[in-house]
Amino acid sequence: MAESKAITTRAQDFSAWYNELIQRAELADHSPVRGCMVIRPNGYAIWEQMQQALDRMFKETGHQNAYFPLFIPQSFLSKEAEHVEGFAPETAVVTHGGGKLLDEPLVVRPTSETIIYSMFAKWIQSWRDLPVLMNQWANVVRWEMRTRLFLRTTEFLWQEGHTAHISEEEAEAETLLILSLYRRFMEEWIAMPVVTGLKTDGEKFAGALRTYSCEALMQDNRALQAGTSHNLGQNFAKAFEVTYQTAEGEREFVWNTSWGVSTRMIGGLIMTHGDDTGLVCPPRLAQWQVVIVPIWRSDEERDATRAAALELQATLRAAGLRVTVDQREGMKPGAKYYEWEARGVPFRMELGPRDLASGNVMLARRTGGKEPVPQEGLAERMHAEIDAMQVALLEAAKARREANTLRGPKSKQEFIDFLERDGGFVYAGFCGDPAVEAEIKEQTKATIRCLPDPEFRSPEAPTTCIWTGKPATVEAMWARAY
Amino acid sequence: MAESKAITTRAQDFSAWYNELIQRAELADHSPVRGCMVIRPNGYAIWEQMQQALDRMFKETGHQNAYFPLFIPQSFLSKEAEHVEGFAPETAVVTHGGGKLLDEPLVVRPTSETIIYSMFAKWIQSWRDLPVLMNQWANVVRWEMRTRLFLRTTEFLWQEGHTAHISEEEAEAETLLILSLYRRFMEEWIAMPVVTGLKTDGEKFAGALRTYSCEALMQDNRALQAGTSHNLGQNFAKAFEVTYQTAEGEREFVWNTSWGVSTRMIGGLIMTHGDDTGLVCPPRLAQWQVVIVPIWRSDEERDATRAAALELQATLRAAGLRVTVDQREGMKPGAKYYEWEARGVPFRMELGPRDLASGNVMLARRTGGKEPVPQEGLAERMHAEIDAMQVALLEAAKARREANTLRGPKSKQEFIDFLERDGGFVYAGFCGDPAVEAEIKEQTKATIRCLPDPEFRSPEAPTTCIWTGKPATVEAMWARAY
Repeated sequence: MAESKAITTRAQDFSAWYNELIQRAELADHSPVRGCMVIRPNGYAIWEQMQQALDRMFKETGHQNAYFPLFIPQSFLSKEAEHVEGFAPETAVVTHGGGKLLDEPLVVRPTSETIIYSMFAKWIQSWRDLPVLMNQWANVVRWEMRTRLFLRTTEFLWQEGHTAHISEEEAEAETLLILSLYRRFMEEWIAMPVVTGLKTDGEKFAGALRTYSCEALMQDNRALQAGTSHNLGQNFAKAFEVTYQTAEGEREFVWNTSWGVSTRMIGGLIMTHGDDTGLVCPPRLAQWQVVIVPIWRSDEERDATRAAALELQATLRAAGLRVTVDQREGMKPGAKYYEWEARGVPFRMELGPRDLASGNVMLARRTGGKEPVPQEGLAERMHAEIDAMQVALLEAAKARREANTLRGPKSKQEFIDFLERDGGFVYAGFCGDPAVEAEIKEQTKATIRCLPDPEFRSPEAPTTCIWTGKPATVEAMWARAY
Repeated sequence: MAESKAITTRAQDFSAWYNELIQRAELADHSPVRGCMVIRPNGYAIWEQMQQALDRMFKETGHQNAYFPLFIPQSFLSKEAEHVEGFAPETAVVTHGGGKLLDEPLVVRPTSETIIYSMFAKWIQSWRDLPVLMNQWANVVRWEMRTRLFLRTTEFLWQEGHTAHISEEEAEAETLLILSLYRRFMEEWIAMPVVTGLKTDGEKFAGALRTYSCEALMQDNRALQAGTSHNLGQNFAKAFEVTYQTAEGEREFVWNTSWGVSTRMIGGLIMTHGDDTGLVCPPRLAQWQVVIVPIWRSDEERDATRAAALELQATLRAAGLRVTVDQREGMKPGAKYYEWEARGVPFRMELGPRDLASGNVMLARRTGGKEPVPQEGLAERMHAEIDAMQVALLEAAKARREANTLRGPKSKQEFIDFLERDGGFVYAGFCGDPAVEAEIKEQTKATIRCLPDPEFRSPEAPTTCIWTGKPATVEAMWARAY
């Protein structure tokens, strides 16, 4: 049962607010296993909606699901030099199986490039077999020191796409296609605007040629990397000898891509839309888009309003809406409202004896506003309401992001001050030197989130590096990040 | 690409047939990790269809999905005495994380009773919180010595339901409800008839009060346990202190159930319906229910038949059918037919210039039969064809099972002979003595698959034990099993 005392406000302590919201909305819980979370039904239902929408997008673009082993022989990780350096320190290692010490320890997958490309090597023979476009929904494990529910946990759920192509151009096109799908999903479903762009070499995936990411700005002005898409070049193809015969009979290495999003997106959803009352869930991802609360004082009223609520539920469900009726007895309507608000249900319909008489319901929006609306034509109305709320949430989040973005700080000091007070995204010129990037991180705790794609860049390209004053080679976007 | 040589026949070597069929249909493959399989897209698509159908059934009966950690502290397993005895010998154990030796080793879940009930203990306070009806879709690991694709692998995918109830009666009702859902799914979707019944104490789940199972008979007359549903009593509730406050203010232990089906069902599907040409997939579970093959000799014919095929595909898809068009060039129609047959696609439509002229398609069924049918009204026709093929597959499997079932053998020798020649299911009287059960297993390699539910029992209950001649306490069903 949800507790009834108010949660800490965002202004008081954002981090405490986040944790208390998750407990109050019963989205997740800490488990007895260090760093591993339990995703409770209310949280898992959001993940299921996310999965369905993404899975449809992947399939519409020709990808197929498969499943590869949880365990990876330790030697596989070492076959790609940067990859092992990046992932070996954070692996969980199985040393015993069936009561015996294993000849070779098995790593619990932190990501599956190595095991998947070892299979691609077996399956791919000819140019006719390409492209291979695969995806898997799976759990992965990375031994994290400091964990936070949804954002960074030892085990998490994700999808990882893995593809093989005939050329670098085709692999790059795939990498960018997926980046665009991710962006569309985050904007149209999570109502979370993102900046897309290229990662610097210091921030890219261990083993990739190039990494692109989606970066969102949370309400505490910290950045959240919400998804990444990697052009792996031929690095893994060479390590695992994934070759194909060309039409001319030559042997060539394939070009790979990999890409993933995870349950971390639920953390992004919470920190983009949540308020001091609890979760605000975008209707397209909500387990229940509408909760109907019948209101009564007598047994007679109870039977009548409950019957009407169930009838209304049936009508709305038939129109494709996700609707539930809160029939619980011994609980006041106000207590029910409070609970459903904490859980983020987008729309509430109150249905009392007076509404039965008038043919209306009282429609309350989680984002504010309450008014009587006719039951006649309610399903069409609700579809429009859902679309409108999605748009409003996205626009509000965009406006907040823009209000917390600094473009072209006039001085290094202004850049530092902005980051010091957790100001949000800052766009500025960068000389491209990794040592400078590292120094900025060291001194400001901010990282280059990405080198933004053209549409996000400032109208006038910066000419000097904000840190060194040397000529800028690119425009970069910095922030302190999760 | 599928190889073109014929597979071993079932009569020649059933086991080789099974393995070759899986490779030919590209359902799964062996991985470099001992005992772990890769589920390839053609196999995973069947699993996705299974998941969707089962998930709907679970949700319609009030169950919610959640997700619990992959890792279980080793000490948790030991809290329930029978449970640890059953599972500890086959666990994979993580001893190192993040480069350090762990204080307490973590077991990779072989099943999740212990970790889940430790969370239930935290969440359940009052009788108002009951029942708790949860399910998770997850991977599990059991260190198997001899593995076979889908049937017995070190890692496999499954769902595990876990519930908590106020009384033994309610828990028993839940256990039986799920058993009936499993049976319905296996019959209506996999078209695989099953015998349901109670497991003996020697065969029940480690830690359960009672285990019920679904037992199917494969084409080689071996039994496959395809799903189990356990009434756990208060065993785990006591081990993990899962208590609730009654309406009267008393503390009581809850009553638990758990139940699961896995990717093993795909093995059951293959061995129930497959033939010497390859897979036969029941249409309700097929990734593609219909493949349309356009046939041409000239470029002009190619363009015309391809356009007609795509139009037909659109019509059939709009009617909710899963349809694909095989547009590949440089491959003869016959080679395509061969490949799609091996993959088990239920219906093939051949569409050539003559069909365009006549307004027909040539409809071929994977189960035999081929005839021209009008394109007019084809969607309705295909829905009827699908229903008819589902029924025919189930009836054929039932008839085969009945033909390979012996009821009431007249002597111990007849019982032994029947099992010796892998005769199938044998129903006979049993005295109930575990030592006798063990002796029969030792001498015949057959186990009691279950004590069949009333509707499966013989019209006249056996009066004597087939092995000892003592009075029978129950009717049991034996078979050699996977």
